[in-house]
Amino acid sequence: MDWNITETNLLAPHDIDRQGIKLLIGNGYIGYRGTLEEFTKGQKTATIVSGLYDKVGDQWREPVNLPNGGFVQVFYDGVGLNALSSKVIAHTQSIDMLTAIHTRRTTFETSDGTQITVCSRRFASLARQNLLCMEYSIIANRDCSVLVQEGIDGDVWDINGPHFDKITSSVKDGILSLEAITHEKLIPVVVSDTIAFSEQNKVTSEEVDILTDQISIFRNFRISHLNKGFTFYKFISHVTGMDDSAPLETSQNLGQGACKQGFDSLFAEHTALWKQRWETCDIQIDGDPIAQQALRFSTYQLLAIVPLNTEHASIPARGISGQMYKGAIFWDTEIFMLPFFTHAFPQIARNLLLYRYHTLDGARRKAREYGFRGAFYAWESQDTGVDACTLFSVTDVFTNRPLRTYFRDKQIHISADISFAFWQYYLATGDETIWTDGGAEIVFECARFYASYVYYSPEKRRYEILDVTGPDEYHERVHNNAFTNRMIAHTFDICLFLSTHLQKFSPDFYEHLVNTLNFEPDLDLVAEIAPNLFLPDSAPTGNIIPQFDGYLSLENISLKDLLARKLNPNEYLGAGSGLATTTQIIKQSDVVLMLYLFSDQYLFDTKIANWEFYEPRTEHGSSLSACSYSLIAAQIGKVDYAYKYFLKTATIDMTGEGKQYVGTLYIGGTHAASNGGAWMAAIFGLCGIQCLGETISINPHLPEHWSQVTLPFWVRGQKLRITITHDQVTVKPIIPLTELLSISLGEAVYPLHSTGELVIPFSGTNSPK
Amino acid sequence: MDWNITETNLLAPHDIDRQGIKLLIGNGYIGYRGTLEEFTKGQKTATIVSGLYDKVGDQWREPVNLPNGGFVQVFYDGVGLNALSSKVIAHTQSIDMLTAIHTRRTTFETSDGTQITVCSRRFASLARQNLLCMEYSIIANRDCSVLVQEGIDGDVWDINGPHFDKITSSVKDGILSLEAITHEKLIPVVVSDTIAFSEQNKVTSEEVDILTDQISIFRNFRISHLNKGFTFYKFISHVTGMDDSAPLETSQNLGQGACKQGFDSLFAEHTALWKQRWETCDIQIDGDPIAQQALRFSTYQLLAIVPLNTEHASIPARGISGQMYKGAIFWDTEIFMLPFFTHAFPQIARNLLLYRYHTLDGARRKAREYGFRGAFYAWESQDTGVDACTLFSVTDVFTNRPLRTYFRDKQIHISADISFAFWQYYLATGDETIWTDGGAEIVFECARFYASYVYYSPEKRRYEILDVTGPDEYHERVHNNAFTNRMIAHTFDICLFLSTHLQKFSPDFYEHLVNTLNFEPDLDLVAEIAPNLFLPDSAPTGNIIPQFDGYLSLENISLKDLLARKLNPNEYLGAGSGLATTTQIIKQSDVVLMLYLFSDQYLFDTKIANWEFYEPRTEHGSSLSACSYSLIAAQIGKVDYAYKYFLKTATIDMTGEGKQYVGTLYIGGTHAASNGGAWMAAIFGLCGIQCLGETISINPHLPEHWSQVTLPFWVRGQKLRITITHDQVTVKPIIPLTELLSISLGEAVYPLHSTGELVIPFSGTNSPK
Repeated sequence: MDWNITETNLLAPHDIDRQGIKLLIGNGYIGYRGTLEEFTKGQKTATIVSGLYDKVGDQWREPVNLPNGGFVQVFYDGVGLNALSSKVIAHTQSIDMLTAIHTRRTTFETSDGTQITVCSRRFASLARQNLLCMEYSIIANRDCSVLVQEGIDGDVWDINGPHFDKITSSVKDGILSLEAITHEKLIPVVVSDTIAFSEQNKVTSEEVDILTDQISIFRNFRISHLNKGFTFYKFISHVTGMDDSAPLETSQNLGQGACKQGFDSLFAEHTALWKQRWETCDIQIDGDPIAQQALRFSTYQLLAIVPLNTEHASIPARGISGQMYKGAIFWDTEIFMLPFFTHAFPQIARNLLLYRYHTLDGARRKAREYGFRGAFYAWESQDTGVDACTLFSVTDVFTNRPLRTYFRDKQIHISADISFAFWQYYLATGDETIWTDGGAEIVFECARFYASYVYYSPEKRRYEILDVTGPDEYHERVHNNAFTNRMIAHTFDICLFLSTHLQKFSPDFYEHLVNTLNFEPDLDLVAEIAPNLFLPDSAPTGNIIPQFDGYLSLENISLKDLLARKLNPNEYLGAGSGLATTTQIIKQSDVVLMLYLFSDQYLFDTKIANWEFYEPRTEHGSSLSACSYSLIAAQIGKVDYAYKYFLKTATIDMTGEGKQYVGTLYIGGTHAASNGGAWMAAIFGLCGIQCLGETISINPHLPEHWSQVTLPFWVRGQKLRITITHDQVTVKPIIPLTELLSISLGEAVYPLHSTGELVIPFSGTNSPK
Repeated sequence: MDWNITETNLLAPHDIDRQGIKLLIGNGYIGYRGTLEEFTKGQKTATIVSGLYDKVGDQWREPVNLPNGGFVQVFYDGVGLNALSSKVIAHTQSIDMLTAIHTRRTTFETSDGTQITVCSRRFASLARQNLLCMEYSIIANRDCSVLVQEGIDGDVWDINGPHFDKITSSVKDGILSLEAITHEKLIPVVVSDTIAFSEQNKVTSEEVDILTDQISIFRNFRISHLNKGFTFYKFISHVTGMDDSAPLETSQNLGQGACKQGFDSLFAEHTALWKQRWETCDIQIDGDPIAQQALRFSTYQLLAIVPLNTEHASIPARGISGQMYKGAIFWDTEIFMLPFFTHAFPQIARNLLLYRYHTLDGARRKAREYGFRGAFYAWESQDTGVDACTLFSVTDVFTNRPLRTYFRDKQIHISADISFAFWQYYLATGDETIWTDGGAEIVFECARFYASYVYYSPEKRRYEILDVTGPDEYHERVHNNAFTNRMIAHTFDICLFLSTHLQKFSPDFYEHLVNTLNFEPDLDLVAEIAPNLFLPDSAPTGNIIPQFDGYLSLENISLKDLLARKLNPNEYLGAGSGLATTTQIIKQSDVVLMLYLFSDQYLFDTKIANWEFYEPRTEHGSSLSACSYSLIAAQIGKVDYAYKYFLKTATIDMTGEGKQYVGTLYIGGTHAASNGGAWMAAIFGLCGIQCLGETISINPHLPEHWSQVTLPFWVRGQKLRITITHDQVTVKPIIPLTELLSISLGEAVYPLHSTGELVIPFSGTNSPK
């Protein structure tokens, strides 16, 4: 039961958006929203292909929504059966997370009292990334006939479309195809639809009518004796010119091959792969079915959207659940999603990181655009690394005018976030090749960017980072944002570490890289700046770290009182003169996130003081926020809060409580960073696991009702199983260790044996018994 | 006729505010608005005393409006005769600028057809600064009687009052007095009213009733046989505890003395002093009565409001015409008013400058408040130099919320403006004592402030001035504002000049000052920064000097199109997300003002290119703006524009076309900077006079219809008369020269003889014939 996410409510319009996200299926290449087969663009049907973007006119660049090959409409007596508009007796819609299959079962009652039930199962094949497979069954409670229309609906939902300049349809060997070309880069896109019938009920090709208009192609056929039931299968292939030179042919061949292999066999190969995945990453939480389901759901979402076997795509902020947020990759991936992949699928983490290497030139161009050198990564990155972020990102509710925001220009921490992620991956995996395969070049270029950005104050005798926006986007263009300065200092540190490390261990590579980049002078500059960079957290006032220069002298108002000042529920609290800008109310964790990312550098007292200071001042206007508060809450012994914020993070796509609209703009979709943040909150927070290189520190803070947590954990190329209860930590290598590892708990450190189980009993206060 | 400013329209309510300003009288200590004697606070009667401020609660600090001692109300048959509400047959109201006397003459027709004419004359005595004198006459066209009520109306107009905590009235020897105490600093304020009757018509004390309520005191008396006419005199004295220890007694004595001396004698001594003033500064423009009147009017306004014989007050932005703009002193004084005084009344200029010395401690405190050293002068300065500027200075018309503005925190050019003014005064007068009497200390402290403000970019190898607001307040918090950087460079230059100059000529003073200020290390710092300070004007792109970093990439929209975007006529174009903030539209001259202030450092081509670039982009939302455009227009040969902008500047208080309200806040009042700017535009612009120390450069650009301009001109302690025609410049010392001077015109330089007249003929292109 834990593996099922089921909705049994009769559908109402407001459920459509939420279920479209919650019941999404995906294989990392295709994302298909959890809509029903008879739905069209009004219900936001979407087939998103990872890495395919398009831009029309002055509108922003966004993912392309492919023609919907999953379309099926059953007509009874000339009237389409539709879960939204027809009389529905019963309806369930669910996903099985274990096999990533979407199931729907709806019983309609027609005007003459006939009950017709349609069931479908569909999955995005994990074995064949271009393929979506569907089984569709119809049965009636009496002998009757229906007309089935199925095919490819090219009239798709777009935020800033239409993205296809021309669509042409074709039929070959019974395979329907729609071929189209994207507007901006003229990339061909083909969707093909091949159907097959079950042994029991065949429809001959003569009984099928093919209909096409300018943008869609459908197949109509009539089914009689419906009381006996009828089943058919659809194999929808999606091929683009991005990775294929003859997409139409490939698409048709894929359909033909699928048809030959059959649904059951395709499902079996798909299922086997998903089960392998889960074995590698599934966490068991005993004593808390809600948390168990929520964490599993978060994991499912991450697995459904992460690109497979490519370094050329990463995970957009809204996954592949639509065109929202421009399908752009933010820092979300590096800071909030990467830890899960690092410890469950290190190779995938590596691919995600190297996506940034393939977009490094875009970052170099952006730095130059703003008058700097090095790499200034896109705030919103797509396929090429060009920044998709617009300068006016929010609409003023009072004047309906676009508001200037400084996400693109001033959120310079993005480059440091990426460097940080490389470092964390390196620490957790020990993978030296990450540096030579691109990581070192990235870190050097990011360090160079910051070296060209800093200013020196002769008055204060220190380097400062001026005019930036930190994670808290309600306060733009501030000086010495604690988070940003700390992150930049870290980039400098990695840069200096690498210069020594590579010189020693990869001297040829190092020499070549430094020469190619002409990095020697910048290395000197970094060495001069690094020890003299101002860190606002190094001498906090009464333990409170000011988020930026002057933050503490802003108006100190409660969140409740601030929100009471709103004149319009949708008004944005930031930008030019938003309500929060002159107050201490922040959008999301900023200092607290920093305290987490550099946990070992801050004292317990500093963490508790700042958590307590900033928590009531945080609006959590971003879905990234709750997870940091959970993580630090766990560290400072506020397990109740840690649990509360963990659940908030883990259930965001289940409850659909995240913001769905900003003004009239739909921004819903899966919250990949929250999904990753849920894993972090559970493992790094409540389980208290921290990877310090060869040593794994485990200081659990389990909620009382969690009797036991068991998890697989990849670290330094070793696969462990960790089991945590309220008085014992057990660590066992799943395969014999090839590297020495040790476990620390409290002040004690225990070496891990190559094969044997290590059991560490401890008392409630995390000190070994 | 040129000396008269007369209004003959029957008064309508909307005239009241305008005439209150236009027909103001003042002697630099008392400012009395051009309202009528029967008017009360509804018509904004105001008696403002220079340098007296008060603050109530959280409201801002503003000048105190004294009880109105000029009140007279005539009742006919129990009904008050009021120019606004009664039937008026004829009305004129005027000032004679030559003698600074206000005259009104109104003929009322009563309900029974009787015509009653009241005439009054009043002046603020230039000989006795506390005294306002009035002659009041009444005559009817038939034998009738009226009741006269006159006295002190304590129910005053306030923007943020009431400023008196208690008011007490008293009568002594027929002198009515109101005594009150200010709210904040408990300063006693006394207004006394003494009356006298003409020889022909006496009223005995028995015939007078004295009435008082809590806040006012009046004298009632009846006059019969009004067909014979009746005249009485009021002597109103205003004394405060700021400069008198027994203000009640002093006030009474002043009244008694005035009464004894009599109106005519008081008027004679007053008139003599005003005539002396005009002889020193009056400019004759032949061929253009409109320009003549406007320039004279501008001069009159400056003379009426400039404080007399004190270094402890300066000229507020709205003069002493009310409580508007908090009665605060802005950079307006140093940049736009000081030149007139320097060349007409150098001693007054010196006083105005030294006001900044007496407020230096306030500037030091402000610098410390913001984390800097040295002197950061108040953006809005009052008596003590504490900054009266609020952080939220504008109200958003859409939400009615206060908008955060950065006038106070970021308009750091104020300190450099003040240093600049000292330098200009020094250049024009040669007065070495200005440095030792405070100027040097100010310049050093301002330079120190900037030295503590700058940042060094290792990338660009230069010092920069970040996060400032220049004169164009529509673009706040910009980097490297060309004007600000140039001004700061100038402060550094004066500082370095003084360190050499004083070391040589006043070594003891210098040593003492440097030791007292511990200025040696800062001097080194200034010497290091000065040559490496980034000046955006030093390498302009295609001759256009970018107003600040990134200015040229802002939206290039026409002013007309920008204004068409307005949704509310009163919406502010700056602050957080005002319409202008993301465009190239600027509030007022910024680069163009810089080009003027450093005229000799820019090429003709640079001036013309930037004038033509910025002129269409300037909204002239500030009354300071037009004058700079006039000045540069004259230099680049656009005499039509120079004349147009001169007239706009010179007539602002005559036409009343300046902004009167921002939202519901009255901001009208005299525009002292425009008054001074008119003088600059005429003398420095159209007449082309520029003081370069011992050499005076004269390159006239007279409008065609100006046949001749004659002006007195103080320079380097010498008094000259300069006469300019279209083909000849004549310079004659009014008193024999005590210092060598020369005149340059075009490329040629002519020494001036001690007594003789120098005549320089020239052709239209400014080159000597």
